[in-house]
Amino acid sequence: MALIVHKYGGTSMGSTERIRNVAKRVAKWARAGHQMVVVPSAMSGETNRLLALAKELAPARPDDAYSRELDALAATGEQASSALLAIALQAEGMPAVSYAGWQVTIKTNNAYTKARIESIDDERVRADLDAGKVVIITGFQGVDDGGNVTTLGRGGSDTSAVAIAAALKAHECLIYTDVDGVYTTDPRVVPEARRLHTVSFEEMLEMASLGSKVLQIRSVEFAGKYRVPLRVLSSFTDWDIDINEEASSGTLISFEEDEHMEKAIISGIAFSRDEAKISVLGVPDTPGIAYQILGTVADANIEVDVIIQNISRDGKTDFSFTVNRNDYAKAVDLLKARVLPALGAQEVTGDARICKVSIVGIGMRSHVGIASKMFRVLSEEGINIQMISTSEIKTSVVIDEKYMELAVRALHKAFDLDQPAD
Amino acid sequence: MALIVHKYGGTSMGSTERIRNVAKRVAKWARAGHQMVVVPSAMSGETNRLLALAKELAPARPDDAYSRELDALAATGEQASSALLAIALQAEGMPAVSYAGWQVTIKTNNAYTKARIESIDDERVRADLDAGKVVIITGFQGVDDGGNVTTLGRGGSDTSAVAIAAALKAHECLIYTDVDGVYTTDPRVVPEARRLHTVSFEEMLEMASLGSKVLQIRSVEFAGKYRVPLRVLSSFTDWDIDINEEASSGTLISFEEDEHMEKAIISGIAFSRDEAKISVLGVPDTPGIAYQILGTVADANIEVDVIIQNISRDGKTDFSFTVNRNDYAKAVDLLKARVLPALGAQEVTGDARICKVSIVGIGMRSHVGIASKMFRVLSEEGINIQMISTSEIKTSVVIDEKYMELAVRALHKAFDLDQPAD
Repeated sequence: MALIVHKYGGTSMGSTERIRNVAKRVAKWARAGHQMVVVPSAMSGETNRLLALAKELAPARPDDAYSRELDALAATGEQASSALLAIALQAEGMPAVSYAGWQVTIKTNNAYTKARIESIDDERVRADLDAGKVVIITGFQGVDDGGNVTTLGRGGSDTSAVAIAAALKAHECLIYTDVDGVYTTDPRVVPEARRLHTVSFEEMLEMASLGSKVLQIRSVEFAGKYRVPLRVLSSFTDWDIDINEEASSGTLISFEEDEHMEKAIISGIAFSRDEAKISVLGVPDTPGIAYQILGTVADANIEVDVIIQNISRDGKTDFSFTVNRNDYAKAVDLLKARVLPALGAQEVTGDARICKVSIVGIGMRSHVGIASKMFRVLSEEGINIQMISTSEIKTSVVIDEKYMELAVRALHKAFDLDQPAD
Repeated sequence: MALIVHKYGGTSMGSTERIRNVAKRVAKWARAGHQMVVVPSAMSGETNRLLALAKELAPARPDDAYSRELDALAATGEQASSALLAIALQAEGMPAVSYAGWQVTIKTNNAYTKARIESIDDERVRADLDAGKVVIITGFQGVDDGGNVTTLGRGGSDTSAVAIAAALKAHECLIYTDVDGVYTTDPRVVPEARRLHTVSFEEMLEMASLGSKVLQIRSVEFAGKYRVPLRVLSSFTDWDIDINEEASSGTLISFEEDEHMEKAIISGIAFSRDEAKISVLGVPDTPGIAYQILGTVADANIEVDVIIQNISRDGKTDFSFTVNRNDYAKAVDLLKARVLPALGAQEVTGDARICKVSIVGIGMRSHVGIASKMFRVLSEEGINIQMISTSEIKTSVVIDEKYMELAVRALHKAFDLDQPAD
């Protein structure tokens, strides 16, 4: 008997057949005595279909007037799937009502296509829950102060679900998806990868930001901020699986550091091929250099990931960072045209054929030598490390992309991730 | 230089190619100095697609919870097409913004799937128009007092457009559709049918209610109530046709009885094959009979059209009426089971193979002998009249459906509708 939030991705909502299964699953939870709030994504393919229509009419533009309409358009996908789920639940004999973001209301700022949730009013939802209804709330969207529809960006439904769970102080937020949990690494690269029963919030945050695509990073941040227990589990199990078995399946993203976590030094290995490396060489080592380089890049709306500044020699230093591979050419052009002459730097070099591999584990806090073990494993495989970046619970290296799978497999084995946890 | 409302049907919005043409047309009007409000329907097929998904999940039910979700679902079609049109206008260099019903706001009552507009707030729209923007407002939908999305029923976008034109005191409301105006009768039945340049509001009301499907009847009622000049015209002319030529094309539904109307006694011939005739024979002629019969039928949500009660003979009378053909079997069963025994009536008979043919004309007010001319024409063709119903500006007859085309053609010729108006 608890307030539970379920979130279903687009694949889980992909057909009326699947929507019916979602309805049966939710009804099972409701009949077990839980107060149920459900956040569905648009039916798979729907958001792409809508955005493709927009693209046929006009090339994407950065202005607000255009982005506002893009959001109004894209938001209809979740509105439709939410209404369909309500109808399916009613057909199961379960009272249900669906709300769009503006009806709840879910207030966001006015940054169209990437809005951030500011507040959620829980009054209407609580009244419905108390009346015994399942409440369905459109994911991915909200409304700004001016009454305009906004969307949270791709994968925003995860964030919606977590934010709603936080506002309602839900017992747990279950993210149903097409994988059955969080793995030590991608099973397509390392067949021995194991599903984690529990992972700490901090680890999940690093995994998400390092390229593990199970959860949208903003949803993990939200879960951390409001301490919402999150569970990632599969929507492709039979809907009538025993509810207790289901409630303990998947991976729990937890806020309690239990014994298990103390034992596992490394929880997982994340990797990403979406990056490119850029170096500005021979930069005069004077204050404000980092800002002059990265500010120029940021002004062009290019996100920077790993940043490294070498120690200076003869008053000159080298400055390196990684960007998303799609932004690589643009960033290099920009630096050559604007930063190189302004700084009197020597050269801008770069490489788009790199990847980032990271080991993540909360145990790194209390164990020494983890990073050096990582470097040893890579060196034994003959893999040259190009950049290193560390945080309290992760160590990332940038290497040639051709070694990515080799590095991930070697590290997975070296850190005993293929062994069942105690 | 005037405030103009354009309404585009689903076929006119049926593809991005067509939406682009709508945008070019609207932009042309805006560039000519008009303040433009546009009410688009959903892209053709979209509403049916959405409702088909709902039907796959659950059979239609009359309860409010279900109807509420059906409306939330169906309303997304217009939201998407409105946003797409805004994007297309912006791509033409024309500032544009789209609003859903709840954003305007368009307030309706809470009769889901067939809501009625109660009020329209024009503040936000006027501000945008004054700022030089084209304002796009979703047709077909509104929001009730409880903040729930409602729809106005099939064809409701016409009503939305007229109601918006009324609220904004628009100079004219142009209904762009796939026909180029209102004809003296259906050109598929009578190839000589002529397009009317002008038709009076009362005539249009009769034509619409008698089965001419050019405009939804509620939109005509609304136009009458608020004296909104309406024009029906084709969206399949080239978008860059001369604007003055376009502005005088189609059919104007007018509130001024000009000379032209005085001359044309009959404006058009409407017909409908969607009806069935039911008679209750040998009913005791006592007060309250009509209510007992029609009340029972109305309680079952069956709409009754033509109603005829014969004079009584020997204290008994015959009572006949027509219903939509889809409701025929249900109505007959109901009358046999409940009304026949309760009234001690003799028999319930009926015929689903009938049709209704009507002549409509504001000139009937001041000209005698129009009805009798109609009856003579039909008798000369050997067509037996089963029921007759008249109003100030129309005369309808119910005849065997096999004579429908014959009757329409004969009447069209007899009343000189194939001759160009003076």
